[in-house]
Amino acid sequence: MSVARPHPDPAGHSIEPLRRLVADDLTAVDRVIVGLLDNPVAMIPKIAGHIVSSGGKRIRPTLTLLVARMFGYHGTRHINLAACIEFIHTATLLHDDVVDGSTLRRGVATANALWGNKPPVLVGDFLLSRAFRLMVRDGSLEVLGILTEASAVIAEGEIRQLAIANDLSVSPDDCMDVLQAKTARLFATASEIGAVVAGEEESTRQAMRDYGLSLGTAFQLVDDVLDYSALQNDLGKTVGDDFREGKITMPVLLAFERGTPEERRFWERTFARVEQRDGDLEHAMTLLARHNTLQATLEEAQRHAMMARDALADLAGNAYRDALLDLVGFCIDRKF
Amino acid sequence: MSVARPHPDPAGHSIEPLRRLVADDLTAVDRVIVGLLDNPVAMIPKIAGHIVSSGGKRIRPTLTLLVARMFGYHGTRHINLAACIEFIHTATLLHDDVVDGSTLRRGVATANALWGNKPPVLVGDFLLSRAFRLMVRDGSLEVLGILTEASAVIAEGEIRQLAIANDLSVSPDDCMDVLQAKTARLFATASEIGAVVAGEEESTRQAMRDYGLSLGTAFQLVDDVLDYSALQNDLGKTVGDDFREGKITMPVLLAFERGTPEERRFWERTFARVEQRDGDLEHAMTLLARHNTLQATLEEAQRHAMMARDALADLAGNAYRDALLDLVGFCIDRKF
Repeated sequence: MSVARPHPDPAGHSIEPLRRLVADDLTAVDRVIVGLLDNPVAMIPKIAGHIVSSGGKRIRPTLTLLVARMFGYHGTRHINLAACIEFIHTATLLHDDVVDGSTLRRGVATANALWGNKPPVLVGDFLLSRAFRLMVRDGSLEVLGILTEASAVIAEGEIRQLAIANDLSVSPDDCMDVLQAKTARLFATASEIGAVVAGEEESTRQAMRDYGLSLGTAFQLVDDVLDYSALQNDLGKTVGDDFREGKITMPVLLAFERGTPEERRFWERTFARVEQRDGDLEHAMTLLARHNTLQATLEEAQRHAMMARDALADLAGNAYRDALLDLVGFCIDRKF
Repeated sequence: MSVARPHPDPAGHSIEPLRRLVADDLTAVDRVIVGLLDNPVAMIPKIAGHIVSSGGKRIRPTLTLLVARMFGYHGTRHINLAACIEFIHTATLLHDDVVDGSTLRRGVATANALWGNKPPVLVGDFLLSRAFRLMVRDGSLEVLGILTEASAVIAEGEIRQLAIANDLSVSPDDCMDVLQAKTARLFATASEIGAVVAGEEESTRQAMRDYGLSLGTAFQLVDDVLDYSALQNDLGKTVGDDFREGKITMPVLLAFERGTPEERRFWERTFARVEQRDGDLEHAMTLLARHNTLQATLEEAQRHAMMARDALADLAGNAYRDALLDLVGFCIDRKF
């Protein structure tokens, strides 16, 4: 099943040109990450290295680097803090995959699929503890406050996600709240940290938080759509992971809301009771198409993409600002 | 099987008198803990509350409170920081029980036994994130450095523990290193933090770190002995948890070292390959008795207890110092 995009970009978007703009910084971030994983306990570089190097796009650290450079920052704090943000993200992924029982991520076997649940739980804790150590070494209570707050919001978002995992009575607003806590908040923080190290004032920091939050929201909504898109399969990612886990995302919630009594019974069986049979995923995708909910979710993503672009409106133009605008396009237009 | 203790204390030791000495502070710590668990997401107070309130002795926060008071501290920072330390400890327990597949802790069903692995993984993350938030609010980079360092050492210790879980070739020194990283380090930190908030100089802080490290080491060695003690059963804790998990502790390591070739084959089957049959636990306990390794482990615990007492030798005497000495006796003499 292919999904029509509301505003297709004929040129397509790639993240590579933006990454080239901060290529040296990204290399430095990678060096910090690799250095922190270097540990005589073989399990640590093995498992952490597996996820860190398994095709992640490093969007969050790239965000911190681009924002810091956009504001003319020339120090080195953004390097360590970008690594910190990637570590928080990676720790979350490891625990997420354990909790969701996921077997593939970006087309590669997950750590829990390869080594069981125990190592990823502990290596996630290890990464998080290293992230906090990096933060403390940065030496700013203000930055520590921002990052620990983000970490607390993410942790709470993860729990709320689990709490509503099979609950079709959740409202779209609650669903959006969880999405923003789990995903968008770290984008907002990654973006804000760039402005903070550059010494920008509060109104500018707020603009960067707004940009990151909207960008992250659009990113995740597109992710939720892609999970039901056949294209995924070509890229090695499994289609229907969210379906099999009974994870309620916007496209499903809208289809449930718009569904006939019979359709609702289907969603209740497959999501609330997670009783799934052969052909259910295909039927689910038919229902999503019938009610245009992938389309509606993409339109919602577009709305947040617009808000992200708007948040940059008052900033002076330069190559980095252009890159942040392109990043919005990438998050919306990506196929994986 | 009952274990003869090398220096039995006819009076016995109870932790209650020491707790009474800082009763108001402990009540304040509990209030902070309960306040932080108060969350509209029901799973959080349910699961965190289950472990926080399930009979823990609050030894670590008590340590911080006693040390701070011993040095005449009259502020309130020690309250929040003691809560912080208990949160780090509780988060570790939740993840530990998931990793070990434990079903009972202190005679009460573990969170993973009651609700599966998912909630405890995420609630552990939540508690840790709240601990870091508390630390940041305390506002001292020095304290943050000490606590994040401890958290990093614990996380690494957990992984090393898993890495050596079924490895009988581990040396007693390595086994001790892991024990100290996993358990004793947080005792050392809890103790040091009390001296730091009271503004004590480095040599005194070092003495308190030494005290805590030795105390925590003695505590855990006794714990490892108690896991093979029949007394446990009366208290609802299962005997032989470590055995069933193939978790290599000092009593087993010593029995392996001292064992005949046939006995070594038994340990290799039951620990290295974790192939266990009815009667194996009883046979293991016979072997521990034959080589006196529970006794030897208790003597090692006594040695660390002595070091803990020595670390307090140069400090001015007062009721709090006496309590810290009593705490050593309690950790050695406890039956549960």
